[in-house]
Amino acid sequence: MDFENEFSISGDEMFQLIAELYPICRSITGDGVRKSLEIIKDYIPLTIYQEATGTVVFDWVIPKEWNIRDAYIKNSKEQKVVDFKKSNLHVINYSVPIHAEMSLNELKKHLFTLPDFPEWIPYLTSYYNENWGFCISQQEFERLKDDTYEVVIDSELIDGFLVYGELLIKGRTDEEVLFSTYICHPSLCNDNLSGVVLLTYLAMNLLNKDLKYSYRFLFIPETIGSITWLSKHEDTVKNIKYGLVATCVGDSGPSTYKKSREGNLQIDRIVEKVLNDFDEPFNIVDFFPTGSDERQFCSPGFNLPIGSLMRTPYALFPEYHTSADNLDFIQPQFLENSIKKYIQVVFIIENNATFLNKNPKCEPQLGKRGLYRKIGSQKTNILNENAILWVLNLSDGKNSLLDIAIRSKLKFLEIWNAAIELYKVGLLEKVN
Amino acid sequence: MDFENEFSISGDEMFQLIAELYPICRSITGDGVRKSLEIIKDYIPLTIYQEATGTVVFDWVIPKEWNIRDAYIKNSKEQKVVDFKKSNLHVINYSVPIHAEMSLNELKKHLFTLPDFPEWIPYLTSYYNENWGFCISQQEFERLKDDTYEVVIDSELIDGFLVYGELLIKGRTDEEVLFSTYICHPSLCNDNLSGVVLLTYLAMNLLNKDLKYSYRFLFIPETIGSITWLSKHEDTVKNIKYGLVATCVGDSGPSTYKKSREGNLQIDRIVEKVLNDFDEPFNIVDFFPTGSDERQFCSPGFNLPIGSLMRTPYALFPEYHTSADNLDFIQPQFLENSIKKYIQVVFIIENNATFLNKNPKCEPQLGKRGLYRKIGSQKTNILNENAILWVLNLSDGKNSLLDIAIRSKLKFLEIWNAAIELYKVGLLEKVN
Amino acid sequence: MDFENEFSISGDEMFQLIAELYPICRSITGDGVRKSLEIIKDYIPLTIYQEATGTVVFDWVIPKEWNIRDAYIKNSKEQKVVDFKKSNLHVINYSVPIHAEMSLNELKKHLFTLPDFPEWIPYLTSYYNENWGFCISQQEFERLKDDTYEVVIDSELIDGFLVYGELLIKGRTDEEVLFSTYICHPSLCNDNLSGVVLLTYLAMNLLNKDLKYSYRFLFIPETIGSITWLSKHEDTVKNIKYGLVATCVGDSGPSTYKKSREGNLQIDRIVEKVLNDFDEPFNIVDFFPTGSDERQFCSPGFNLPIGSLMRTPYALFPEYHTSADNLDFIQPQFLENSIKKYIQVVFIIENNATFLNKNPKCEPQLGKRGLYRKIGSQKTNILNENAILWVLNLSDGKNSLLDIAIRSKLKFLEIWNAAIELYKVGLLEKVN
Repeated sequence: MDFENEFSISGDEMFQLIAELYPICRSITGDGVRKSLEIIKDYIPLTIYQEATGTVVFDWVIPKEWNIRDAYIKNSKEQKVVDFKKSNLHVINYSVPIHAEMSLNELKKHLFTLPDFPEWIPYLTSYYNENWGFCISQQEFERLKDDTYEVVIDSELIDGFLVYGELLIKGRTDEEVLFSTYICHPSLCNDNLSGVVLLTYLAMNLLNKDLKYSYRFLFIPETIGSITWLSKHEDTVKNIKYGLVATCVGDSGPSTYKKSREGNLQIDRIVEKVLNDFDEPFNIVDFFPTGSDERQFCSPGFNLPIGSLMRTPYALFPEYHTSADNLDFIQPQFLENSIKKYIQVVFIIENNATFLNKNPKCEPQLGKRGLYRKIGSQKTNILNENAILWVLNLSDGKNSLLDIAIRSKLKFLEIWNAAIELYKVGLLEKVN
Repeated sequence: MDFENEFSISGDEMFQLIAELYPICRSITGDGVRKSLEIIKDYIPLTIYQEATGTVVFDWVIPKEWNIRDAYIKNSKEQKVVDFKKSNLHVINYSVPIHAEMSLNELKKHLFTLPDFPEWIPYLTSYYNENWGFCISQQEFERLKDDTYEVVIDSELIDGFLVYGELLIKGRTDEEVLFSTYICHPSLCNDNLSGVVLLTYLAMNLLNKDLKYSYRFLFIPETIGSITWLSKHEDTVKNIKYGLVATCVGDSGPSTYKKSREGNLQIDRIVEKVLNDFDEPFNIVDFFPTGSDERQFCSPGFNLPIGSLMRTPYALFPEYHTSADNLDFIQPQFLENSIKKYIQVVFIIENNATFLNKNPKCEPQLGKRGLYRKIGSQKTNILNENAILWVLNLSDGKNSLLDIAIRSKLKFLEIWNAAIELYKVGLLEKVN
Repeated sequence: MDFENEFSISGDEMFQLIAELYPICRSITGDGVRKSLEIIKDYIPLTIYQEATGTVVFDWVIPKEWNIRDAYIKNSKEQKVVDFKKSNLHVINYSVPIHAEMSLNELKKHLFTLPDFPEWIPYLTSYYNENWGFCISQQEFERLKDDTYEVVIDSELIDGFLVYGELLIKGRTDEEVLFSTYICHPSLCNDNLSGVVLLTYLAMNLLNKDLKYSYRFLFIPETIGSITWLSKHEDTVKNIKYGLVATCVGDSGPSTYKKSREGNLQIDRIVEKVLNDFDEPFNIVDFFPTGSDERQFCSPGFNLPIGSLMRTPYALFPEYHTSADNLDFIQPQFLENSIKKYIQVVFIIENNATFLNKNPKCEPQLGKRGLYRKIGSQKTNILNENAILWVLNLSDGKNSLLDIAIRSKLKFLEIWNAAIELYKVGLLEKVN
């Protein structure tokens, strides 16, 4: 599979799709999710599933569907001092409807700000506790005067559906690679339109390719979405051999890999190798049980081989869950860099293999096969003799190309190229 | 067991008991040990055992009992230039009796000093080699003039007994925790009245508590005492599951844990976790075969799960085995800090357990059980959701609470509290 | 075996032998090798073997034998501008004969220099690709004027033999220690007359000693020599329990140990311990499949327990494979230091053993056996009580003296001496 060259990736295009999705008010249910999934469907043949309010999914129940048409706070001069139309973060996600007049003191019980970042609007939710509230900047808060305010949240909570998108790209085997991302956040870019768009472009590029593994892409609301999906796939998740949760992949920070719960699985070794091969700073962090949908995938009853490859992890950038996680916070170059790492992960998943050196006693004479420099002691870059010797030495039927690349500290691609050369001249045979 | 709060610990009281024991001249046998054990018996119901001189204990024989009434060196003007009554360190422990006149030159063969610390008196012993001598400061030594001296050591070596104290606090099981300390040193505080008093107060606090394990406390002369005790308990030591040798716990240095011979036992993991949880600097050192009674407990024929929790290890503080290891060298605050660590060790021994998450597939909905914040994304300190999620994620029947606390880097108490909360709402069940 | 004292080692003598071998033009075949082996035979009773051109050895064929009488380049004034007699590096090793006139431009295709080191002549070979060429300094190259040059290489490639030397010193068992070095390099000192002479002196000192292991010394041409030897000893190499490739042992750099392919074998632990015990800086590097004959010994079909103990590794000193690797680059003191480390490796191989503490329950009373200081608490250097206690504590039948020395961080010699003392008084018995 030569898909490194076949891939068509543009950080600018990815950024444009984020910009298109940005204004939509999403939540864990509702029309914003439907609209977002329809836009993604223009890129990849998503199947859209829905589960009804009240459905029991493990310990949870699918909540009512939430939709919101408008919301504002008006002062006694009929001026809108807070307006949902300017930012959908202004309303606590899943706020119940309200239409009332109240004093500033009464109103303040329902106002939330970020005093440390006086210009930013916080992002808050109240999915499972009926409540209402407005999120505003500290500056807006301080401008509010003693007055009587008209408070309107034109929302509804009705029996409806939880909606999510799924795409299965079938490979030659039933063994699966799961890529999951969450589509429930409103106007927030890094967290997590970046992950949504990265997986959209990754899937688009894997379509119609000759793949060994089957690739399943999930675009789900966080937590309740993964719980719902797992409750419907209890038996089939055993096919998942590798997986990643895509989130926060557009900011300028170094790549960060959060390991699987087991911590020493193939997916962990592959992602660490990819990050090493990129010759850029990166961080590896052990699994922890807060975070995104890996919380569910890696719950002890599933314990799937799934990590999360991001840039700056959620909650470690101050813009996280605020209006500052906007289109200025992400950049095309970082989106492009991130997807290239995902592609390289897929490349290793597809191409890792174990070979057997058919000439295991002493080195074979590489020179007569054109695989060695002609004049001894001269340095040469024509052939990567070093990679060739590593592959020959370690291909005893136990070490995979990934093992060899890790031990030799050479890039996976160098080791893989060397193996291909050796296989062509008959010095290697494939094991299983 | 809520014994953190039930414990009554006062560094000042501990210090007072040390001050009471300090003047007594102890050795590996003799009345000083008896008197010291009687004082301790006012605090805890020690049983006092004795073994007769000549008894064979493994490769050793219990020596004659040594007692001393007085000792001095007088010059020709009848002035006492060295006086045992001023410091019992002045006589080499186990010196045979002598009453003679001799020249300074003759006397000097029996005088020992510390030239590097000219004001300090060294502490020396000659248990198994009949000899006599005086230990004096270098300053005293240099003041001695050419003269004829009367030398008196009014001691006796007789067929008697080796005496030691033991207390077994029975728990609900026969599995034992051994705490051992040595009571053979004369007027020396950190080494080892600090250890003696720490175990006295620890035992006092465990009395009448509902304990899972049985706790055995030994107050023995070093080396010959542990050899004697082991020779009488060859078969029952198999019940010992954890143990610590208490020594040098009153100085200002950081806590130091000397691991068991195996180095990776539960006692080692527990003490390391306790030291981590205290958020103070500390040292962990591998087992080495010099030191105190762990030399015997960890001899290859026993290899017991016993380490030693101290502050500055013996021989690493210059005051060690000198008159400078006095009441000024230790402080109530350090004694109190040390015993709190011992208590925390007991707390983990008693409370560590393994649970099974009864809702292992995905997270349970914590909110409906009052275990989760109501508004998403808001930080809260009311509940330690982080600890709760760690316990749920790792309680797969294999990880103990200690394992979870170590992996999560949260304090054992936080993990234990979270487990209790989860157990109360029926989300955990106990394994075994 | 008390051979530390029996060894007669002189860095000056070793250096003299290198100086004697230095001028000879060696290659992987030819009279230079024969002459070198005959000189070594004056020191140790080498057996000299030969294999005919055309013999198939695994994937390789023994090449034609190469000899060279003379070579030069003359300018039109009959001046020799390059003269093989001045340095045998001037001719590419294995150059085919040529006698021709040519222009400077034509000649330049066959001239090789080191622009970064303008005074040095490079060392190049063309064993398996018929070719000819001259190696000269960049300075010489730049002095060449447009002219017609007479080019003479009076060499021959004939059906002959590959020649190598071997010495087996029989010990009490058939288990073998293999020491291998390569004798194919012409006038180059560190790489590898240093290795050749080190093994000559090591073998000389092991002759007529009472040895447990059998010691096999190989003086072979690199690569083709080890392949040839292995092809003739496929079945018997299983007797090899330890081995080292000796190369680059005369320069001023710190000792470097390149581990066996497995990386955690006894030979690896022994050499690391020896380097630690010398209290000098050193480096340990993992196995890599470039280098010297360990490439063949550690090919996956053999995977022998062989590492390489050198000083600065080949290719990491700029003088490597140039005329600057001359008699000035090595020094007697470094040769002597290197061979002492090899001797210490042999010492541990011969003397490592596992003992059982016959008094495993508590410490034995060392004092009554004269193995302990008489007055307690006094420091003493007369006996190494520390080593004695380590040996007693860890001699449970599982730990070897090497294990104990590594764990205690004491020198192997200290541990071995303590074991001898304890064995003499009957406190240890030998296992197996």
